[in-house]
Amino acid sequence: MKVGIVGLGLIGGSLALDLKEKGLEIIGVSKRQSTCNLAIEKGIVNGASINFDILQNTDLIIICTPINLIIPTLKSLIPYVDSQTVISDVASVKMDIVYEGSSLWANFIGGHPMAGTSQQGIEAIQAHLFKNAPYVLTPISSTSDLAIAKMREIIELIESKIYICEPKIHDQAVALISHLPVVISANLIYTALSEKDKKVLELAKKLASSGFKDTSRVGGGNPELGLMMAKYNRQNLLSFLCQYRENLDLFIKEIEQENWQNLEEILQQTAVSLNDFRD
Amino acid sequence: MKVGIVGLGLIGGSLALDLKEKGLEIIGVSKRQSTCNLAIEKGIVNGASINFDILQNTDLIIICTPINLIIPTLKSLIPYVDSQTVISDVASVKMDIVYEGSSLWANFIGGHPMAGTSQQGIEAIQAHLFKNAPYVLTPISSTSDLAIAKMREIIELIESKIYICEPKIHDQAVALISHLPVVISANLIYTALSEKDKKVLELAKKLASSGFKDTSRVGGGNPELGLMMAKYNRQNLLSFLCQYRENLDLFIKEIEQENWQNLEEILQQTAVSLNDFRD
Repeated sequence: MKVGIVGLGLIGGSLALDLKEKGLEIIGVSKRQSTCNLAIEKGIVNGASINFDILQNTDLIIICTPINLIIPTLKSLIPYVDSQTVISDVASVKMDIVYEGSSLWANFIGGHPMAGTSQQGIEAIQAHLFKNAPYVLTPISSTSDLAIAKMREIIELIESKIYICEPKIHDQAVALISHLPVVISANLIYTALSEKDKKVLELAKKLASSGFKDTSRVGGGNPELGLMMAKYNRQNLLSFLCQYRENLDLFIKEIEQENWQNLEEILQQTAVSLNDFRD
Repeated sequence: MKVGIVGLGLIGGSLALDLKEKGLEIIGVSKRQSTCNLAIEKGIVNGASINFDILQNTDLIIICTPINLIIPTLKSLIPYVDSQTVISDVASVKMDIVYEGSSLWANFIGGHPMAGTSQQGIEAIQAHLFKNAPYVLTPISSTSDLAIAKMREIIELIESKIYICEPKIHDQAVALISHLPVVISANLIYTALSEKDKKVLELAKKLASSGFKDTSRVGGGNPELGLMMAKYNRQNLLSFLCQYRENLDLFIKEIEQENWQNLEEILQQTAVSLNDFRD
């Protein structure tokens, strides 16, 4: 199989690395010539270029750009590609991209490899980054069997766990387990920073232990990624944020009214259910 | 120095272990004879009993019971103890205990060793549990120099980092960095559980990765500890919860109104400040 990877950052570069190792022919495209050179130097591609015409005769192209560039990149690609070529993407929010992508290209299929590190760029690429991580495919009624089959093949090669679902379900699930935690965690840091008593804030900084550190970790991550997820999954995120706020009011009410038995029952429920969200 | 440890659970037992290793004479008291026997067997005490009279002639007694039993235990101890004996405790909320303890016993001083594991009881004790962890002392104007000096000696022996502050500042700081995270983390799990679309919830459970796991960890902890902290630090916790809710409304507003620049600025601020709460 000849595979094009457009965007040679952490995700695209790591995909190229694993797939080339498995014997596939990998063609890279980056908007920077220096990245193309580096990809060739590192041996993660068989060829690389800043021009899309290098993608002619590929069986599959995976667009690994930032989310806001997926559709513009797809549009730019189309003149260079055979109609049999399957095109996929790696965006973390699927709904709009899948419907627009599918209307632009019959063999389009949305994908979301759920792996990453706190680093970015081709310098940060890792072998086996996707091994055992979830890889979600979001076909819709118009998606071709060919597109599903090609992506299945890729996902098996990189040893990810495949999940297949509707774009809408995917976006709601990631809003809940990925995007909501970012906001509530960021708001924890923001609330700490808004403490006006300097003595309290200084002591809090010194006493912060693993509890605070774990709860605040994702809220202190890459601001651009946080912004993208809010922009692209806005409606689902808002809906969970409002549910979260409603539930927070319940916690506040139980504590305010000293309904200790109710509070204990809730905490017992969260303790018992914690492992449902773990492997 | 002859030190009494009342309550031989994780904290009391681990304190006994480290202090006996440093050559101090350690007397343990537990309400269960089996725990006393186990403490002697494990060699973490020089003597142990279910009766307080074994505590006669001790220089220092540290009450390591659950928070709701600190003051009742202090009251029960008093008939057996010389007036020169310093008495301290390990409760995670200090205000009420320190003022009541100090009115009951002139040589009382509040303390809070901030270490622990997810396990409990004498079976879970660990050597060097407190090494490099914060140990807060909360003297008030009436606290004796003797009490401060004795506890300083202990804290140096177990190699904790000592912090000295008013009980009120301590309680506000732990409400912010320890008790608030428990509630917002528990509410994340609670919100996930309240999702009515089964397809979304099932997929969310499968896709939950380190972001969700870290953010939900402390909210799925021991329900009794969560309840105690809400009961004993109620006012401070409520005040931070209300501040948190107010800030959450700001996040919701910025996302609702698509004020992306404001949101980005907030996320940049939380990203930059994250390390202020890390060593």
